[in-house]
Amino acid sequence: MEFKNARIVKKANVYFDGKVTSRTIYTESGERKTLGIMLPGDYEFGTGAEELMEILGGEMDVCLPGETTFKTYREGDSFIVPANSKFKLILKTVADYCCSYKE
Amino acid sequence: MEFKNARIVKKANVYFDGKVTSRTIYTESGERKTLGIMLPGDYEFGTGAEELMEILGGEMDVCLPGETTFKTYREGDSFIVPANSKFKLILKTVADYCCSYKE
Repeated sequence: MEFKNARIVKKANVYFDGKVTSRTIYTESGERKTLGIMLPGDYEFGTGAEELMEILGGEMDVCLPGETTFKTYREGDSFIVPANSKFKLILKTVADYCCSYKE
Repeated sequence: MEFKNARIVKKANVYFDGKVTSRTIYTESGERKTLGIMLPGDYEFGTGAEELMEILGGEMDVCLPGETTFKTYREGDSFIVPANSKFKLILKTVADYCCSYKE
């Protein structure tokens, strides 16, 4: 699968000493997305806009806002994180993801 | 800096257990590039087409084909790797790069 007529920011977004990195793209319709990689580790992220996270490869255990348990999401799965909230992730393997921002 | 009217492959290229990852893009003029991240480690890569490597962030020590010593390339630097050859890299920090293929 490819995005056509996209605008791609050349420089990467780098978090957690490079264990989480992504590239920002803007699709033909103007939607902002990031295409990213997470290496094994435990992470907490905060959202601004609502996010749709699609798992493109690997898997991640996710604790969504208001939840107390982690659920495993695998390649082909997706989940939504509400705006202005925090969520936790535990990665046991490398994972490839696409995050779409609802702005 | 951004690439406009580009095509980007959604799924990442993953090497060395995710310590080296990249996304493939095709620029408006049809040139193939990869935008990638290397985590600390020692790597050897082989080329098919000639590659122009630009360092977008961080730094890497590179031993080019035919050389016996490593040279440090930093943000803003670039180097060319001939087609059908091998080169070695030592990364002490995370590095962000853009690789352009001369096809």
